[in-house]
Amino acid sequence: MSKSVITLNCDMGESYGPWVMGNDTQVMPLIDMANIACGFHASDPKTMAETVKLAIQHDVNIGAHPSYPDLLGFGRRTIVMNSEELTYSLIYQIGALKAICDSFNTELSYVKPHGALYNDMLNDLSIFESVVDAVSCFSIPLMMLAHPESQPFLDIADRYEVPLLFEAFADRAYLSNGQLAPRNREGAVLIDAESVINQVEQLIQYGKVMTLEGDVIEIDADTICVHGDNPQAVTILHQLRTRI
Amino acid sequence: MSKSVITLNCDMGESYGPWVMGNDTQVMPLIDMANIACGFHASDPKTMAETVKLAIQHDVNIGAHPSYPDLLGFGRRTIVMNSEELTYSLIYQIGALKAICDSFNTELSYVKPHGALYNDMLNDLSIFESVVDAVSCFSIPLMMLAHPESQPFLDIADRYEVPLLFEAFADRAYLSNGQLAPRNREGAVLIDAESVINQVEQLIQYGKVMTLEGDVIEIDADTICVHGDNPQAVTILHQLRTRI
Amino acid sequence: MSKSVITLNCDMGESYGPWVMGNDTQVMPLIDMANIACGFHASDPKTMAETVKLAIQHDVNIGAHPSYPDLLGFGRRTIVMNSEELTYSLIYQIGALKAICDSFNTELSYVKPHGALYNDMLNDLSIFESVVDAVSCFSIPLMMLAHPESQPFLDIADRYEVPLLFEAFADRAYLSNGQLAPRNREGAVLIDAESVINQVEQLIQYGKVMTLEGDVIEIDADTICVHGDNPQAVTILHQLRTRI
Amino acid sequence: MSKSVITLNCDMGESYGPWVMGNDTQVMPLIDMANIACGFHASDPKTMAETVKLAIQHDVNIGAHPSYPDLLGFGRRTIVMNSEELTYSLIYQIGALKAICDSFNTELSYVKPHGALYNDMLNDLSIFESVVDAVSCFSIPLMMLAHPESQPFLDIADRYEVPLLFEAFADRAYLSNGQLAPRNREGAVLIDAESVINQVEQLIQYGKVMTLEGDVIEIDADTICVHGDNPQAVTILHQLRTRI
Repeated sequence: MSKSVITLNCDMGESYGPWVMGNDTQVMPLIDMANIACGFHASDPKTMAETVKLAIQHDVNIGAHPSYPDLLGFGRRTIVMNSEELTYSLIYQIGALKAICDSFNTELSYVKPHGALYNDMLNDLSIFESVVDAVSCFSIPLMMLAHPESQPFLDIADRYEVPLLFEAFADRAYLSNGQLAPRNREGAVLIDAESVINQVEQLIQYGKVMTLEGDVIEIDADTICVHGDNPQAVTILHQLRTRI
Repeated sequence: MSKSVITLNCDMGESYGPWVMGNDTQVMPLIDMANIACGFHASDPKTMAETVKLAIQHDVNIGAHPSYPDLLGFGRRTIVMNSEELTYSLIYQIGALKAICDSFNTELSYVKPHGALYNDMLNDLSIFESVVDAVSCFSIPLMMLAHPESQPFLDIADRYEVPLLFEAFADRAYLSNGQLAPRNREGAVLIDAESVINQVEQLIQYGKVMTLEGDVIEIDADTICVHGDNPQAVTILHQLRTRI
Repeated sequence: MSKSVITLNCDMGESYGPWVMGNDTQVMPLIDMANIACGFHASDPKTMAETVKLAIQHDVNIGAHPSYPDLLGFGRRTIVMNSEELTYSLIYQIGALKAICDSFNTELSYVKPHGALYNDMLNDLSIFESVVDAVSCFSIPLMMLAHPESQPFLDIADRYEVPLLFEAFADRAYLSNGQLAPRNREGAVLIDAESVINQVEQLIQYGKVMTLEGDVIEIDADTICVHGDNPQAVTILHQLRTRI
Repeated sequence: MSKSVITLNCDMGESYGPWVMGNDTQVMPLIDMANIACGFHASDPKTMAETVKLAIQHDVNIGAHPSYPDLLGFGRRTIVMNSEELTYSLIYQIGALKAICDSFNTELSYVKPHGALYNDMLNDLSIFESVVDAVSCFSIPLMMLAHPESQPFLDIADRYEVPLLFEAFADRAYLSNGQLAPRNREGAVLIDAESVINQVEQLIQYGKVMTLEGDVIEIDADTICVHGDNPQAVTILHQLRTRI
């Protein structure tokens, strides 16, 4: 059975000082939820403010996209932090973006961790709990990967009264165990626009996806992530907007 | 005429990762207002959280102590930023600390800029306005140096509906124009405990201070800043607590 | 009388981690001297190594392009440092690039400071001396703006036995006092390819340039700087290569 | 059989900007080899220069003490880097310190990686090879933990023509497999001065050490590391100096 409403989310505001990344002005009008970097893997206060402003103009929901403190590595490298360090590091980042949202009289709607932290929280429930602990201070949902065995995550989130939003990926291949194929595996990233659109249509119409191993698995997603760094992101988003 | 109530404020939470600065556990019980560093000239998320916790234990008001982004230089070096960069940089820092306060169900009560930014806002009204603009998002007062010609500052602050708190310095010598003597001038910093205590008593009882040039000027202060990095800070604070 | 040989220099290696800046692979074959960023305003160790490798492939001389420590501001913001701090900060950066050159069995040939530091050393002889002091440790020349009143600079450089290389700018307008027009002044940056090429031809053939005020002044340059961030840099460099 | 000459090495220059760590002026006269931080986990260019100057005054050999790029975590957190990133990151740091040594007409004598990188290279030969690759550019030895199974390390080092220096630890407990006991294990760090001195005497006289499990193992060390952050470091070093 198809979801009646499904949203598109995209990582935004990943420029830093003089360095531009992504194509925010073209992408923002085409998405529903903007995951805005908070200065630890990308962005800076002024870029954050400009991205918030752009999101407001296009009536896009704003989420915080915090990370390990790793600018040079773009938050893609795990940094082992104890739970207190991690939780306060996240409260710091989310709070900084929330204050910028407040300054525009708009709301921060959710949190989606970035890069290595996103992967690590899916593979280690103690890291997940540190993330949930941080998010609970803001009374907003946490976005994570939709996958078949979400019960342990739901249990922790319930304990902290943090709602979970589940997302699927438009342009990442899945394994039959419901995990994303690691980036270094052949075929892990769907580059061809038609493949991406097919995967999204399957997700929306049937809540299913074909894995790299050739199985079909169920994915029950509230939102679909499209990567803005895909060279065809704007084309893909235009086509998705027409079809969904 | 003496002020019926005058408070003591002190810069706190200036450790960074493994490096300890100051003597927070001994100083915190002796002060009324803690100016807590926000990670740009000192501190880190975990240190901020620990400092907030310590302030709560001793019933001390919490203020944000934001800075230019200059960890190596401890925020003592001016960095020329345009007004938008500066304002969002401050909202970022203040928002990060406010979120940490929220996580402890406590309030952020005021903002006091640090180091070169503190000096620069006193010497350049456009910088002062960028600071006031940032503070106005939080509906809390801004703390600044009490000096004879505060009207232009009051005018700007009024426009943004930001209350001002005026402070005098316990351990810094004044010039006859009401400014602090620059740090590199001989006698600019009072080191001797008795001199510091005398200056504070003059400030509290008469609202006056003797300048380096030998004049007596009026200083109308709401709060008095004692520097925790003074080697005798704890001794001085103990004596001040006994006398005021 | 025209210079028999004049070289083109360009700022290179200004990407940082995942963020790309400039068009190094297209520009490198067209220049003689590459001013390579050293990690303080741009670049990182791996980017530095890749840029050195690219310079070697195209037989381009390598210069160090050190900066104030200001990644977010791209080294365009003055940071007030005392002379010891500045000198060791530069030795650190130049030494890091020199070691990377050594690892490729190639030489570091000169130093050209970046951004605000470049401007500051031209306006303050004490800063210039700190720079010269650092460069003297490497027994290579320092590159600086060719302008009419270079004697005080030559005097200092002589004292430290540091040769000076003088450069003119292909795409920056001059004032009649021999200084570059500040970037915020209208017409300060030549964008049109033909204007840039005209200015370079005047510099090479006659050692002269027409100023913003309409005067013609003499500029005795050893090398000409073309900015790689000019959108037409590659076109301009191609045409210059054909004509000189 | 006792070693005729054994040297003491100590981590030095770990202050950062305004934050002081360690007791370098008291420790330096008592050691033979100073492992000087290179700015990535601690130190800054001016601190590096001051530490080099101090080493020269006391005729102490200077080694580079490079790290993962992790100032906040003091280099104690593993950051996963590919081999090229790691090698150039190390060449950068070592080159920076070498240039500062050059500016004082003194030599850089060896390299000893810091913290998590030190541990990681002992546990992963591919990381060890990246380190050796970097050190080979400087034609100086690499210092590493003396332990029973050093042949695979010697094989790699030989291939790059990098001599190895083996060290033992004065104040860390050993396991029977020759590894250091992890810091979080009870008894891993010897705090009591007499225990430290006993362990050093055993190492020097017999080339042996008693492990946490109660075994006696052979340790063939060229140098012994004493940690300057041990609160009794100065006392311990004084006594060691008297006895060896």
